[in-house]
Amino acid sequence: MQAEIITIGDEILIGQILDTNSKWIAEELNKIGVSVYQITSIQDDRQHILKAVEEAQFNADIVIITGGLGPTKDDITKLTLAEYFKDTLVLNEEMVAHIEQLFAKINYPFTEVNRNQALVPSTCIPLKNEFGTAPGMWFGQYNKVVVSLPGVPVEMKGLMTQSVLPKLQATFKLPFILHKTIITYGMGESMLAAKIEDWENNLPTFIKLAYLPSFGTVRLRLSAKGATNEMLEKAISREMEKLVKLIPEIIVGFEENETIEMVIGQLLTKKKQTLALAESCTGGNIAKMITSVAGASNYFVGGIVAYSKIVKIMELNVSEKTIADNTVVSAQTAEAMAKGIQQKYHTDYVIATTGNAGPTADETDKTVGTVFIAIATPTTIFSEEFFFGKPREKVIARASNKALELLRKEILKN
Amino acid sequence: MQAEIITIGDEILIGQILDTNSKWIAEELNKIGVSVYQITSIQDDRQHILKAVEEAQFNADIVIITGGLGPTKDDITKLTLAEYFKDTLVLNEEMVAHIEQLFAKINYPFTEVNRNQALVPSTCIPLKNEFGTAPGMWFGQYNKVVVSLPGVPVEMKGLMTQSVLPKLQATFKLPFILHKTIITYGMGESMLAAKIEDWENNLPTFIKLAYLPSFGTVRLRLSAKGATNEMLEKAISREMEKLVKLIPEIIVGFEENETIEMVIGQLLTKKKQTLALAESCTGGNIAKMITSVAGASNYFVGGIVAYSKIVKIMELNVSEKTIADNTVVSAQTAEAMAKGIQQKYHTDYVIATTGNAGPTADETDKTVGTVFIAIATPTTIFSEEFFFGKPREKVIARASNKALELLRKEILKN
Repeated sequence: MQAEIITIGDEILIGQILDTNSKWIAEELNKIGVSVYQITSIQDDRQHILKAVEEAQFNADIVIITGGLGPTKDDITKLTLAEYFKDTLVLNEEMVAHIEQLFAKINYPFTEVNRNQALVPSTCIPLKNEFGTAPGMWFGQYNKVVVSLPGVPVEMKGLMTQSVLPKLQATFKLPFILHKTIITYGMGESMLAAKIEDWENNLPTFIKLAYLPSFGTVRLRLSAKGATNEMLEKAISREMEKLVKLIPEIIVGFEENETIEMVIGQLLTKKKQTLALAESCTGGNIAKMITSVAGASNYFVGGIVAYSKIVKIMELNVSEKTIADNTVVSAQTAEAMAKGIQQKYHTDYVIATTGNAGPTADETDKTVGTVFIAIATPTTIFSEEFFFGKPREKVIARASNKALELLRKEILKN
Repeated sequence: MQAEIITIGDEILIGQILDTNSKWIAEELNKIGVSVYQITSIQDDRQHILKAVEEAQFNADIVIITGGLGPTKDDITKLTLAEYFKDTLVLNEEMVAHIEQLFAKINYPFTEVNRNQALVPSTCIPLKNEFGTAPGMWFGQYNKVVVSLPGVPVEMKGLMTQSVLPKLQATFKLPFILHKTIITYGMGESMLAAKIEDWENNLPTFIKLAYLPSFGTVRLRLSAKGATNEMLEKAISREMEKLVKLIPEIIVGFEENETIEMVIGQLLTKKKQTLALAESCTGGNIAKMITSVAGASNYFVGGIVAYSKIVKIMELNVSEKTIADNTVVSAQTAEAMAKGIQQKYHTDYVIATTGNAGPTADETDKTVGTVFIAIATPTTIFSEEFFFGKPREKVIARASNKALELLRKEILKN
């Protein structure tokens, strides 16, 4: 079963609004076994709407349209759909009552403009909008469905969840779809691809693999589609098992929305261990990632953003000689920072970072993009040198991910 | 001049990835006077790519394609474009050299898979990708242009800025478009709209206003389109002048990509003053924002992420009695944290934050979303209480923006 999503609204095409609706709808449709063939964003323009809906109906069984249902002049979706289906608008009394009720609740005067929101094409099934005045509209013809929804995310989501998804499941016999994700850290996409090439080439045709790379991490997603759920479960588990054996050392998690900071949080919580941070070049970014996880206060004691030399010396007890002999961007400084914060905060683990994120070289002799990461554990301290290129934001993001990757490996050892 | 944007990648159609590229590209194209006719997201599928490119070339003068240029098997954009243009792939030696250089820098083995990234259709102009191995590709025929770019945002943006936008401006005669942005902090969108309503209603028809709100900040963008640049400059300056008079107290900057952390950086650099941070509920996010600005080491001494009570007491010298009497989420604790970090780091300014970002209530009696922000200046310390709602990420983002907004006002006074 194929769907096409059409979003209507000039504000998307001038880059003013980020279209988050389509992603959400696509995800929900995929979950119930409907593939999305295409997502199309078009202008509030009659001709363009007519053309897009016609093409979408040709390509797909299900067309979901969002946007252009507001009460103002530039919202022409409803009129245009009536034209497309050679239909006329009629006042739906149930919708009038619903809209009146909404206005009574917020104590707003109910006007003719608002009443017009209850005008719908005569052949559609109007869908009640819990969070707004524009009803959804369901057009069904010859096992082809067109649904029109408002563009306001909370209204669209309410209508999808309460009406559209259940109606789709009742209308169509849908296949089973299963997704499994593996999260890896520490190997680039091309090296990873080379390492799992044979396995990938031998995947059954009903299983697809996607690489989703981002700043030192790659998500591998397997998607299987078939007639029975059991068969898919079995096949995808078998392939996952083989894959895990090929790259055990770089796998960090198996949940779609999991991040390494969440995995570290789970590990530290389980082991009742603690973490502190001494960040120079990452400038608080690792602390920000760690504390983005709800419950971080259970294991994250705190951190020092040692951006200046004086803070490294005064707060982290890095000796002036260490810095003079090796510069601040060095293994020695990174390890001294780690030692300093561990002695101060008495945590099981510590991450320390020092480097030059750019754009200009600092007073040291190190290239822009050079970062030293030190890790202290209950038993040892070590550091590694990395080169993360440019620009600044990439250096900070990759250094942060690499630091968390190193930390996770150490937590697993202890 | 019309453009169409095509994004290629199954991950968008299954709803795993939010397509932020198209919004960015649409915004940049609009800025140089190119309207976007349609944005289309399609699968990594040969037939589908061929069809989409053909239709886009029919609808628009300029087609910008992103995605599907990675080194792996599911990336088929390049091969399919070669087929579309009845062309063959040839090895581009300049690109080979560039990719080898990239690999040499990060000390990674250069493989056959990487060399293949330098294979490009013979008739295209390859565009050097500063941040990755996949070159961009520019196909020009009969005043119709097709451009293919990698989907990784930093790579796409680099190629657009350095190559594609300038080449489009050189190739086509584009109308004059002028944008001016005002960045405001501290007033919600609807209140702001009410305050400037009369002015907005009296704007000339060739000037459009856009509201771009985000976590406590609203960007107001004026766009004027016309035949001569001088006329636009004059008209837009006149309107800006009126607008500034209406809301002087909330305006933070006038540069499109300016952020409050950049404005603060400029102010502190100019005044040769310094800043330190004591963050609890914002967890390093303010430090991350401050250090995202190149040159932050000139004024940012460092910070303490005082996530636990013990760090507040030991490192920031907050008394146990203050916490016992008022809880950690209180004005008293926030101000004590500010005092503590200022005495320790000897900076002119200090921000301290303490609150509950949620999702669950802590041991204090404060509602989730409550945040106290304290500011210390060379002459005073004060704090304010805020309620930032939920979810967690919104509380952290709004608290960080509000803290920087308060800080800026104090810097301007001193």
